[in-house]
This record gives sequence, C-alpha cells and structure tokens, in this order.
Amino acid sequence: MAPAAATSAVEQLRSLVAAADGPRLKDFLEKLTTEDRVYTILRLEKADIQRLFVLIAPEYAAELMKEMPEAEMSGLMKAMPVSDAATIIDQMRSDRQADILSGMNREASEAILNKMMSREVKMTRFLLSYPEDTAGGLMGVEYLNYNVHATVRDVLTDLRENGVRYSDYEVQYAYITGDDGTLCGVLKMRDLLFASEDTKIEQLMLKSPVSVSATMPLDELARFFDDYGFLGVPVIDGHGRLVGVIRRTAVKEASAKQANKIFLKLSGIVGGEELRSMPFFTRSGRRLGFLTMNIGLNLISASVVAVFQGTLEKWIALAIFLPIISDMSGCSGNQAVAVSIRELTLGLVKSGEFARVFLKEAAVGVLNGLALGLFLGLVAWVWQGSAMLGAVVGFALATNNLVAVCVGGLLPLVAKSMKLDPALLSGPLLTTITDMFGFFLALGSATMVLNTWPELAK
Amino acid sequence: MAPAAATSAVEQLRSLVAAADGPRLKDFLEKLTTEDRVYTILRLEKADIQRLFVLIAPEYAAELMKEMPEAEMSGLMKAMPVSDAATIIDQMRSDRQADILSGMNREASEAILNKMMSREVKMTRFLLSYPEDTAGGLMGVEYLNYNVHATVRDVLTDLRENGVRYSDYEVQYAYITGDDGTLCGVLKMRDLLFASEDTKIEQLMLKSPVSVSATMPLDELARFFDDYGFLGVPVIDGHGRLVGVIRRTAVKEASAKQANKIFLKLSGIVGGEELRSMPFFTRSGRRLGFLTMNIGLNLISASVVAVFQGTLEKWIALAIFLPIISDMSGCSGNQAVAVSIRELTLGLVKSGEFARVFLKEAAVGVLNGLALGLFLGLVAWVWQGSAMLGAVVGFALATNNLVAVCVGGLLPLVAKSMKLDPALLSGPLLTTITDMFGFFLALGSATMVLNTWPELAK
Repeated sequence: MAPAAATSAVEQLRSLVAAADGPRLKDFLEKLTTEDRVYTILRLEKADIQRLFVLIAPEYAAELMKEMPEAEMSGLMKAMPVSDAATIIDQMRSDRQADILSGMNREASEAILNKMMSREVKMTRFLLSYPEDTAGGLMGVEYLNYNVHATVRDVLTDLRENGVRYSDYEVQYAYITGDDGTLCGVLKMRDLLFASEDTKIEQLMLKSPVSVSATMPLDELARFFDDYGFLGVPVIDGHGRLVGVIRRTAVKEASAKQANKIFLKLSGIVGGEELRSMPFFTRSGRRLGFLTMNIGLNLISASVVAVFQGTLEKWIALAIFLPIISDMSGCSGNQAVAVSIRELTLGLVKSGEFARVFLKEAAVGVLNGLALGLFLGLVAWVWQGSAMLGAVVGFALATNNLVAVCVGGLLPLVAKSMKLDPALLSGPLLTTITDMFGFFLALGSATMVLNTWPELAK
Repeated sequence: MAPAAATSAVEQLRSLVAAADGPRLKDFLEKLTTEDRVYTILRLEKADIQRLFVLIAPEYAAELMKEMPEAEMSGLMKAMPVSDAATIIDQMRSDRQADILSGMNREASEAILNKMMSREVKMTRFLLSYPEDTAGGLMGVEYLNYNVHATVRDVLTDLRENGVRYSDYEVQYAYITGDDGTLCGVLKMRDLLFASEDTKIEQLMLKSPVSVSATMPLDELARFFDDYGFLGVPVIDGHGRLVGVIRRTAVKEASAKQANKIFLKLSGIVGGEELRSMPFFTRSGRRLGFLTMNIGLNLISASVVAVFQGTLEKWIALAIFLPIISDMSGCSGNQAVAVSIRELTLGLVKSGEFARVFLKEAAVGVLNGLALGLFLGLVAWVWQGSAMLGAVVGFALATNNLVAVCVGGLLPLVAKSMKLDPALLSGPLLTTITDMFGFFLALGSATMVLNTWPELAK
C-alpha cells in the first residue's frame, strides 16, 4: 500500500466507524492484508479504535486483537468499557487471555475478570498466578486429556462428539493422566490410526513422558525446545500433576519478544517497548526516565573534567579530543556489553565466570585499543602539530579502550548476579565509568606532561 | 552447574577426546543437560571440538550440531575434513543443511556438497538457490505429498509402508498436487480418522489452500504466521508448483535470530553475531570494522570543536559540558532509532512516511528537550556560577535534543528506502550529526554571547 492509498484506507475506516456499521466494518477490514489492517487501525484516534472493537462481533474482535501489537492491546482493553473488554477476552485462548491481562495493573485486570464468563475466569486466574516468563505463564489449557484406563474406542468417541470444541486445539498429542491427575503418558494421535479399538491407551501411550516444571524460566524453555523437536510439552506442578501444555510457538514467540525488549532497553526505552501510536506522555515519560538517569551519571563524569579545568585551559586542543575518547570508549564497551548479554541469553557464559570474560575481552581490548590509540594519536599529532598531544590522546584512548571492553563485558554478568536488568543498566553505567576513566587518563597524563615540560602550555 | 563443576566437566570431556573413545564420549555428553553440553563442548580447544565430532557417530553428531549456535557450526564444519563434514550433514534435515552451508563461502560449501550422498545433494542445492531470509530459504522438503487422484486407502497404505521414513516429519497435513505438480489442496491427516477407505482424497482435502510464494521475505512471513494459526504452509514457485513447506517454528526462529542480529548490530557488532568462543581475529576484526568507521566520523564532528577553539579558550567551562551535550543527544537519538527499527520490523511504519515520524518525534523532542535543557542549564548556572553559561548550555541541549530525535527517527527510514542496513548504520551516522550540531549550537551561541558581552571571557 503506497502512502496515498494508505491515507484513503484510514479515511474510509474512520467514516465506517462514524457510521457505526459493524458488518461493513468487518467486510472492509477482511479485505486488507494483515499488515495493512494493523497499520490502518493504528492510524485511527484512540477513541475510534475503541469504538471499532465494540462495533464488530466479539469473536472477530478477539481475532483482530491477536494481530495487534500486545503493548497496544492491554492499553486499549483498559480504556474500553469493562463489559465490552470482558466479552472480547472471553473469546480468546487461555494463554492469550493471561498475556493481555498480565499487561495491565491488578485493578484493571480484576475489573475485567469479574465480568468474564465464570467458566473461563477460573482458568485465566490460574494462569495469571504464574509469572509471565515461566512455563506456567506461557502454557495453555486447551489440550486433549484422557485417563490412563481409557481405550482407543473411548478416545475416538470423545473426538467425534467434541470435535467442534477441539477444532482450535492442536491435536497431535493427547496427554494421559492417572486418577490423581499426575501425568503418566503421552499419546501420539496418529498412533490411533494403526490401533484396534479395544486397545488400552496405557499400551499405546509413550510412558515416562518428557515434561517441564511450571516454574521453568523462558531461557531454559527456549533451550529445551532447541534440544527437542516437540511441538508442545506437558507442564506439571510440584506434585507431578498435569497443569497445562506449552507450545513450541509460544516459547519461540516469547523469545523473539524478549530479544526485541533487550534491544529496545539497550537503546534506552524503559519497559522494552514503544510504538509511536502509544499515548504521548507514555512515550515521553519512558524515554525521559532513562535520560534523567543518564544526565545524572553524565554530570558525575563531567566533574572529572571540571577538576582538571586548569590543565584544559593551558592546553585547549585537548578539548577537541575529549568527546572522541568518550564516544569511542563507549562504543567499544557497548560491543562487549552486547556480546555478554547475547552469551547470557544463550547460556554460553555463567554469571560467575568473571575471569573468562575478562581474559577474552582484555585480549580484544589490547589489540583494538592499540590500533585505535595509534590512529588517533597520529591524527592528533599531524592535525594539531604536537607529538606530545598525540602521545597523551593516543595513550588515553588505547588504555581506556581496554578498560571499556573489560567493564562492558563484566557489567551484564554483575547485573545478572545481582538480579538487576542487564539490558537497561549496563549502557549508562558503562559510559559513566569509561567517561570518568577516559577523562582522567587524558587530563591526568596531560597534567603530568605539563608539569614536566611547562613550555608546552600556551 | 557451578563454575567448579563446569571446569571438571570440561576436563573430563577433554580427556575422553584425547582417549578417542567415541561410545564413552556419547554416554558422557548425553548425561549433561543441553545447556551444559553446549557450554562444555565450546570450552574445548577448536581442534578438540573437531576431533569430538569425528569420533562420535554421524547421526549423533548431526543431533549435537542442532544444539550448537549456528555461527559456531559453519566455522567448525569448514575446518573439519570435508568427507567427515559431508557425512554429518547428510544426517540433517534439508532446511538445516541449507542453513549451515549458506553460512560458509561458496568454495567450502561446494566441497562439502560434492562429498554428500547424491540423493541429498540435489535437494540441498535446490534450497541453497533461494536467499536465506525468504520462504524458499527457510522451507523444508520433508513433507507428505499425494496425488489428487489418490484414495484414503492409498494414503494409509503409504503411511504404513513408509512410517519409518516419515518418523521425522510433522504429519498433521499432507499436501495434494495435480499431475503437473501444482498445489491443489491440503489434507488434514486427522480427517483420515473419520473417512472410509474408498473416499477420494480430492473430496476430503481443503481446496484452494493458502500458500506462500518462495520469494516471500521473512518479515512478511512473520506477519503471515501472526495472522494465521497454521503450523506450516506450502510454498509454491512462480508456476504454482509445490516446492516445499515452511514451518511456523522455522519462521519464529528466524525472527528471533533477526531480532538478535539487530540488537548486536546496533551495538556495533558487524555481521550481527559474536560469541567469545569464536576465533580471536574474527572477533577483533568485526568490532574494529565498526570502530574504524566510527572514529572517522568522530573526527569530522571534532573538527567543529576545533573551529571554535578560540571561544573555548576564552570560556573554558564550556569544555565540561560538551561531552554531556554529545552523550545526551546521542542517547535521545538512539531511542528514536530503536523505535523506528521496531516499527519498520512490525510493518507499523512505511519507509516513505517521513512526515508522520517527524511530527511524532518532534513532539517528544520538544518536551524532553525542554526538560533536559532546563535541568542542565540550572545545574551549569549553580555549579559554575554563570547564568549565561547555563543559558548557552541549556539552549544547546534542548535544541539539539529536538534535532537528535528527528534525525534518529528518520535515519532508519532513509536507510531502508536506500536498501542499506538500518541497524548497523543509524547509530554512527546519528551521533556524527548530533555531535556536529550540538557542538555548533553550544560553541556558536557562546561565540555570539562573547561578542556581545566580552567581559564574560576570562
């Protein structure tokens, strides 16, 4: 859709909402591609978006919601009349319900839960009781479950009778439980194709099935599914009872979401998500939160420059190179931060392995520091005609580059072992430390040089 | 695994490799969790890792390879004796083969292809002919395919006869083609459960099935699977012929990989991947590539400071605040870069929508710029006892913050419409522009102030 066509689609949608014509709205939206649909809806004013979701049938609203960015949906649901929101959420699958409700504050989600259909609420509350990025928070409760004493005939009968209800399920597997609810087997549905109707499920099922604990965190789950080809795996509670099934796609989606959050947090977006369709003050506030922390830290490192003001006054050319030293060290350090965060996510480094990270980074830091320091030193010498300036600036950058990669490599490990968020904190802390060190190295060595050769001062 | 236990596991593994004891190696590795297995293997020296993969049976080697980070595997395969590499790759599924081979240069992958079993090679070459991040590059060729004229009996017979070969397949669906190979239907395997053996597949299949073109790029595929609940979708060539099946998980995995690449590139890791187990010169070189570009750009912006050296000499306190203005504007701009990259990935902004991004960013830029500028101005006034210094510094930061978010928001759109990589280029270009502007605003306005009130100079 070219921008012009896009504008007219937004106009059309707006007038359909104004006309309050539910069926025509649905027709119009269904003709667009997913991408254009999401794009066009999000170009409407907030109030119109709410009206749109109330105008169309709840089933279609639930379907549409699935396509929209999650960060938008929780906000939209919160702003809608509670009973409308509850009707739409009623139409969703349990894991999706939990996803959206966990994006709201407790008060808002309770209000919606109170209006939901009673048979759904218990399940959703149950899912909400698990932290978001664990197997319990990511699992669904729509799966086939049979008793271990059932026969193939029982299963086939149930499938024929409840086929409609199961039509949303992924039915490659059924999960087999004992009388007390403990998981005791997994049945490949296609094995039913080859078995006689009197066969006991117990004989057909795979015994001692692989399962995961409801408390297993996302990164372990991601590695679990990397290891095994399963499309889904049963989730058990502390007593071995089957409580849900976690699908491979739910884990992969959560991993992709986590990777996106990391990159946004590293870029200083608090909360790990911003879209330009979000409310203005949310956007401004989240960004300002990070910037405020950063300006505070910047002032701390600037105080190092202030201490050496006298030196700077005598040797003004240094002021040209201070921002370069600051920026280059920050860049080098950020590379090391990114690699550490990547390795932590993959489980390739453990949060206690300071020595390994230090040695690996130091090696790169020495080589790259020498290369960059030598280059900047030569440039400073030629440009400003002072070999001593080149020596000071080159020495400061080379040394500080080494400091930067070591600090940058270690910070995420330290943050992780202190249970802090490595993605949001590593960057600002890194640049504060490297700025202070860099300014100190450059201005401190310049001071020593000036004390030794006062004639260098202007 | 605590670091101490980890060390001893590495030691044990190393001695098993030295003893060249394949079966015991497998026993040892199988007892570890996936995470510990990958971790322990990657702690060995490169030569030992190669020896390990040759010592164990090729099937197990192929299984292990699946667990290892892809970036490591292409390198390892390249370094192994070609015939060993070919034997291991022969054991993998076609999409995985294409993945690993496409990570090598042409020469290396050709050498391996020439040693592979002939029935595999044709398929793999075929998959390699599609670009990596398209439906063709991500699809697999292991799927059930029946002719439109077959009966349920034919299908069931084939399933019983070839069950072993199909055991790796995901068999919820079979894809139905006409005599000329064009896709004409999709058969839900579970519908076989309810049908009589004489039923024609044509009657049972879903007609006009959804399919994607082999050239569909990753971001469209990701949105496609967000829209539809399918676990897999058939891929067709330009003539409507079935050429493969793309699985939801393959797309989700590729998206997660892409998100990781973006965050690493934004942090200055060329190529979008670095692990500390990679060769030293690869790591150092990729980082240095980015840093070299950056130092060049830094020198350009430093030249603005050099132009105003005279002003700086007269008003040295400015030198304390220049790095703050540079760093803060960089941070603000990076937030806008990240949001644009996120919106481009989600398809929420089109690369021509400069006006929208500009307006959305300008609003945030004005508010946050005023807040930050006011704050820094007050700090400068109180700290250095000069209201005029506060005014200069505050004005420069407030204005430059506005410039930074607008430039930061627009750069990824510009890069994308010029078919450049937004993630790798936006950061360095942004900081160059914001540094030049920031230095110019601060030092230029300081120059004007000094011309008007010369008594302010020391």
